[in-house]
Amino acid sequence: MERGPAADAVVRFTPGGLLLVVSGPSGAGKGTLVDRLTAARPECVFAISSTTRPRREGEVDGVQYEFVTREEFERRIAQGYFLEFAEVHGQLYGTPARFVDDGVRQGRVVVLDVDVQGGASVRRERPDAASVFVYPPSIDSLRQRLLSRGTDGAEVIERRLRNAPAEMAQYVEYDYVIVNDDLEQAVSRLIAIVDAERSRVGRLRAGGPDR
Amino acid sequence: MERGPAADAVVRFTPGGLLLVVSGPSGAGKGTLVDRLTAARPECVFAISSTTRPRREGEVDGVQYEFVTREEFERRIAQGYFLEFAEVHGQLYGTPARFVDDGVRQGRVVVLDVDVQGGASVRRERPDAASVFVYPPSIDSLRQRLLSRGTDGAEVIERRLRNAPAEMAQYVEYDYVIVNDDLEQAVSRLIAIVDAERSRVGRLRAGGPDR
Repeated sequence: MERGPAADAVVRFTPGGLLLVVSGPSGAGKGTLVDRLTAARPECVFAISSTTRPRREGEVDGVQYEFVTREEFERRIAQGYFLEFAEVHGQLYGTPARFVDDGVRQGRVVVLDVDVQGGASVRRERPDAASVFVYPPSIDSLRQRLLSRGTDGAEVIERRLRNAPAEMAQYVEYDYVIVNDDLEQAVSRLIAIVDAERSRVGRLRAGGPDR
Repeated sequence: MERGPAADAVVRFTPGGLLLVVSGPSGAGKGTLVDRLTAARPECVFAISSTTRPRREGEVDGVQYEFVTREEFERRIAQGYFLEFAEVHGQLYGTPARFVDDGVRQGRVVVLDVDVQGGASVRRERPDAASVFVYPPSIDSLRQRLLSRGTDGAEVIERRLRNAPAEMAQYVEYDYVIVNDDLEQAVSRLIAIVDAERSRVGRLRAGGPDR
């Protein structure tokens, strides 16, 4: 019930939207972390990428990825549909620009799960994104996770592992590093990063006083 | 049990130290938030300021503050003992520089609870500090908290409230804003900020591979 200048000084804050880029080498466990994050925080939405790679056991079209033909993918590239796209291990992956930008504008936390090549593109295209690098505790942990997926052949796994060291060196380009040695701890770190980023002055929307 | 270049690529990360500045107007609830943070996170240590203001009921010398005479305080100023000091509402407050810098060097999160004048000085002196502004939901909430403390006279309270709007406008200079309308939510936001800052690439210490 105040009046006068003192009451007028009170600003109302609303958390603004946010693009969260989660990247790291194949087998670092990005997917599980992102799943747990979106389950824990309703304001977080997963940005579904388009890909030409074959669907893995347990994956559903339009949930983890939108699975499209190379022809369809190339049509979308021509239409400027993607915020970024890359060919990784012989397959095309791309992030729909409109989904990301609309979500952020609406105040959501749009979460991208991208390989390090895609991560570099998104950080360049959207410099105000918050970026997280999921770092493996060892090369062997990558191998174990790739093997237990049971979806890649031995040759593909070895190629992914050969690429890992160069990919891992990219962590320096990110805002945050999470070492994925303990899943529960890694999940709570990722949630903390989202909660903290939502409290950043530069991301808050400051409204006038409403009383 | 890997050998060769792949294994050598794995970096070991240790969280580095951090100076966390918590500021805001008198009565915003900084003290309670900082108490809860240090109770929840053992790596967080509260930096005890020196002050000439009288001890309040329930306060213990050397716990909330070190209570010193004006003469002793001025001797310390002359010795360069303080990272910052300020005269607020007629009393001197100062942060011991060595405590802060030693703690950060040892990998701790050193938490400062300072008024906005002190906050501005510390941010200037230690630009790598993370800074949090505790924002009141209303001027009336400040009044209620100052009244319920029961330690300041009506005149002191009115002076603090008159200063509040100008102090509140300072939030833009901070890294984070926490609106203290719900204590539990505010506490978990502050903890999230510490956890996230500890995962920042620029604050991690990257060691060589140990295997």
